[in-house]
Amino acid sequence: MGKRIYNFNPGPAALPLPVLEEIQAEFLDFRGSGMSITEVSHRSALFDEVINDAKLRVTRLLGCGEDHEVLFLQGGASLQFTMIPMNLLPDDQVADYVNTGSWSAKAIKEAQILGKEVKVVASSEDRDFTYIPKNIIFNENAAYVHITSNNTIRGTQWSRYPDTGNIPLVSDVSSDIMGRPMDLAPFGLIYAGAQKNLGPAGVTLVLIRRDMLDRVPDNLPIMLKYTTFAAKNSMFNTPPCFAIYVVQLVLKWLEETIGGLAKMEQINKEKAALLYNYLDKSEFYRGTADKEDRSVMNVTFRLTNESLEQVFIEQALANGLGGLKGHRSVGGCRASLYNATDLKAVKALVSFMAEFERRYG
Amino acid sequence: MGKRIYNFNPGPAALPLPVLEEIQAEFLDFRGSGMSITEVSHRSALFDEVINDAKLRVTRLLGCGEDHEVLFLQGGASLQFTMIPMNLLPDDQVADYVNTGSWSAKAIKEAQILGKEVKVVASSEDRDFTYIPKNIIFNENAAYVHITSNNTIRGTQWSRYPDTGNIPLVSDVSSDIMGRPMDLAPFGLIYAGAQKNLGPAGVTLVLIRRDMLDRVPDNLPIMLKYTTFAAKNSMFNTPPCFAIYVVQLVLKWLEETIGGLAKMEQINKEKAALLYNYLDKSEFYRGTADKEDRSVMNVTFRLTNESLEQVFIEQALANGLGGLKGHRSVGGCRASLYNATDLKAVKALVSFMAEFERRYG
Repeated sequence: MGKRIYNFNPGPAALPLPVLEEIQAEFLDFRGSGMSITEVSHRSALFDEVINDAKLRVTRLLGCGEDHEVLFLQGGASLQFTMIPMNLLPDDQVADYVNTGSWSAKAIKEAQILGKEVKVVASSEDRDFTYIPKNIIFNENAAYVHITSNNTIRGTQWSRYPDTGNIPLVSDVSSDIMGRPMDLAPFGLIYAGAQKNLGPAGVTLVLIRRDMLDRVPDNLPIMLKYTTFAAKNSMFNTPPCFAIYVVQLVLKWLEETIGGLAKMEQINKEKAALLYNYLDKSEFYRGTADKEDRSVMNVTFRLTNESLEQVFIEQALANGLGGLKGHRSVGGCRASLYNATDLKAVKALVSFMAEFERRYG
Repeated sequence: MGKRIYNFNPGPAALPLPVLEEIQAEFLDFRGSGMSITEVSHRSALFDEVINDAKLRVTRLLGCGEDHEVLFLQGGASLQFTMIPMNLLPDDQVADYVNTGSWSAKAIKEAQILGKEVKVVASSEDRDFTYIPKNIIFNENAAYVHITSNNTIRGTQWSRYPDTGNIPLVSDVSSDIMGRPMDLAPFGLIYAGAQKNLGPAGVTLVLIRRDMLDRVPDNLPIMLKYTTFAAKNSMFNTPPCFAIYVVQLVLKWLEETIGGLAKMEQINKEKAALLYNYLDKSEFYRGTADKEDRSVMNVTFRLTNESLEQVFIEQALANGLGGLKGHRSVGGCRASLYNATDLKAVKALVSFMAEFERRYG
């Protein structure tokens, strides 16, 4: 077997090694069943234990108690972009959206395709999405306010959520869920593709506040209604069992090995600070996002000499540091420091960056 | 590690042991990348190789060449029930549906929820879905004819597909795809949740004939349009990478270890014949489907003394034979004999059944 690399992929991303080892160890015989987890029926006590434990850990980690329903869906955040207005935005109402980059823009576009009325109440497009808009005025009659809590591509993150009064917040939290504690009270719904901080690609976590379920129209396709999943413990049809199982193990690792989200946030801040401090001192590299709105999860940067970026990325990989290429829509470099990427990995990265700077600077 | 059981689960179902062993062996280091397959970017040459090889194997195994586009979607067959009429049935046309049980009925219901015009041209509901309707008259103007090729719950299967002339056939093939060779020419679209004959739960294979893509309306949500997936090699957003990877390995096993679908069909027929012949000779057990329409994949049966069924299922499991409970909507017993369940398993089952009959008969 080869050596494991330090993985800075933006998603699918690194998973905790002890979780991968546990999956591998029990892959032919899941918890004494004589079957692989991939062969176990979703209509079995064995799988009930997996999904129910995963749900319980979500509510415990986020401290949201019984107010929110935990759902496991398919289709990624991209399917949520259409399910949210379909389920939660009546035709005679408007929803407010904040545009902080590609993912927000896609969410807005999907609502518009449905013929729904959308108001873009703030945007950071004027400065290439390098910041988070402040002091936003929301429509007091908005059905909800949609934000993207962390912008994977641009490396920005809401450090504090906007105050929307009584209007429910709806947020794509794909790339920072479980990276820090979160007060769910103002949120009508949050959603996250698992492949960044939660598990493998193929499952989407949705937390919906119970009162929001009352908005779901009757006449939607069954697989596109939140109420279908809420009524059937996310198992109206066969769920993505393996992905849910990995999520369960990742949540267990978060609770039992890391010690919860406050601890996780502390570690994540330390990791990000190490890299940002290095970037700020260097004239060879520069961070691309406004300091106050920088993401703790995705550190986007450029080399002052952009023509060296390709060599940088290649040599990093040759040195066991993978996934440092920026998103194809913006170029440059990006280090995603999700929960499973540990301090050791970031130290190795900074030390490689310093070495590269010495050689090419 | 415990002993692996003989797995007759209806889905998620048994996977070939060599496939599971290969996944396990490379789980921490996928093909020398230093990452688990669950950590590899879908925007990488590594994953391109996986998905492109899987697509190629599908077309080679089914012999469908370039006429059909191979897509990997999420949401299971249940999401296809709504996507098919949404994409392929214009509001001013009608589609013909044949009702052969629960799954057909769900497909019909979803088309109706969309307000589409559906004609149920044949049904086997009069005799509890124990047979496949014959000599069906189709509407010559139908946009398509929808059938369910194999009825997992009732244990019936179309041994020959109906002649629909120029009307494209659309079929749910979730529980018998790749179980036998198939002439795809009359099919406008086939779809299959992977968790029976193809891989783990969490990915849905769709084969769509290229001319059908012209029907897709522009104004549908992006994630619900077949054209989105066709244009982006099924990677408009992050696909369910792990599930697609397992499908690739299962297809490789089908081609390289089994030797293709004609061979697979021969093995499947032998397995089914062994069990059906035993059922037919016994007065203790009885098959529930009409002989001529019996499924090669799902053998449904009852004990003449139905009160013994619970004991039968429990003792079977204690003897290492799992998954024999009939679907909760119909009760009784069912042995699913998908591709990965080998002749040895069926021999073990028949020998247990004979022993049980001797003891309780």
